[in-house]
Amino acid sequence: MRGPRLKVGVLEDEHDEIDLGLMLASAGHDVSWIHHTEEARDFQLVVLSVIEEDLPDLVEELAAGARRGQIYLHTCLGHGVQVLDPLEPSGALVVAAHPLSDKLWAVGSLDELGETVVELLIGELGGEALNIPETQRSRLAAGMSYVGFLETIRNDAFILLSEALGNEEKALGITGELGQGRILHGVGSVERELAAIADPGRARTYRDLTRRTAEISGVQDIELWAIQEDKS
Amino acid sequence: MRGPRLKVGVLEDEHDEIDLGLMLASAGHDVSWIHHTEEARDFQLVVLSVIEEDLPDLVEELAAGARRGQIYLHTCLGHGVQVLDPLEPSGALVVAAHPLSDKLWAVGSLDELGETVVELLIGELGGEALNIPETQRSRLAAGMSYVGFLETIRNDAFILLSEALGNEEKALGITGELGQGRILHGVGSVERELAAIADPGRARTYRDLTRRTAEISGVQDIELWAIQEDKS
Repeated sequence: MRGPRLKVGVLEDEHDEIDLGLMLASAGHDVSWIHHTEEARDFQLVVLSVIEEDLPDLVEELAAGARRGQIYLHTCLGHGVQVLDPLEPSGALVVAAHPLSDKLWAVGSLDELGETVVELLIGELGGEALNIPETQRSRLAAGMSYVGFLETIRNDAFILLSEALGNEEKALGITGELGQGRILHGVGSVERELAAIADPGRARTYRDLTRRTAEISGVQDIELWAIQEDKS
Repeated sequence: MRGPRLKVGVLEDEHDEIDLGLMLASAGHDVSWIHHTEEARDFQLVVLSVIEEDLPDLVEELAAGARRGQIYLHTCLGHGVQVLDPLEPSGALVVAAHPLSDKLWAVGSLDELGETVVELLIGELGGEALNIPETQRSRLAAGMSYVGFLETIRNDAFILLSEALGNEEKALGITGELGQGRILHGVGSVERELAAIADPGRARTYRDLTRRTAEISGVQDIELWAIQEDKS
């Protein structure tokens, strides 16, 4: 038996890596991409897929139009579900969901109903929902950044091997296919993730690899932040 | 048709990552592990599988006993075949071979006969031999170090994810299986590899990840070297 088909509105920015909207459309939901916050009131499920830094302001804008019966879901790993608090007085249900792998999703909810709803949604996408305590989300985000750094390093390895072998295909045979690197989402996120890493060597390496990733992808404010941190 | 079965003597140290001796035994050769350089004269093929730093002295020791008809092969990626020069006056054939992947081997030789011999040996192991110019070996070694650094980073990611998820199996589902990290082979090798990296950001990251790898594996002289380099 399939669940109900929801009328889904997706608010995303150009950084969207997850494309939950596309996944929900593939699962048979009626998905629209919306560009103005006032359109959100027309949807049963509103997906907020923007960078961490922009989410609080977006939520404030949405608060006026939210209503009972709607579900608001954000996809930021760095934020818990609390960032959606301004939507709560309307009676809307608020949840968070972020994919950690093809299978596993980090989810957040405020109550049992939220937990059930987000688990059903993720289950429908073939995923397994894992409830992450608010206090562990920054550490989890730092871990996911580290996973993204693998591609930063793989890329550097590929360039050196290509040069030395004079052959890109053979270099790829050694490094494995190059994947999507970490997309950096503002100094605030990076600072929160860094603060969640207790081991000093691991924290230093997080900072070093953030700097390299920013350098390669031309994100100057984060590169400057990392240089500054290195000096302090 | 199978090639001739060679009487192989392997001189290796505790750092041996490659185990060419075991591969040659699997291919049907008569392989012995030898512990004194004077035993080397009894073998048709002598495999030298020691760290870069120790190879020149070992070659000097072997020079007196080397003879025409023997093949000497070393497995150090950082050295070209020139490090075997002291064996040449004896008329022994000298070659180098180091695996870059399951399939691809970096090889070196001084002449056409050497090239043929090393290609036959590697071909027998199911590998493809790629002749690497002496000038590119350090850059290639730096690239292979970068490939090893992937495991340094994967390990840090795994620890953070395990802590945040409270579950090691789920963490492995995100990072992929943890592999063998880079084994560090002395400050000299690291300095040569670093010198072969032209891009300053890539070189800095090489140094940062060497430091982290040394820190994790407790190789203090390399850790101190990296800290020193960072300050200079």
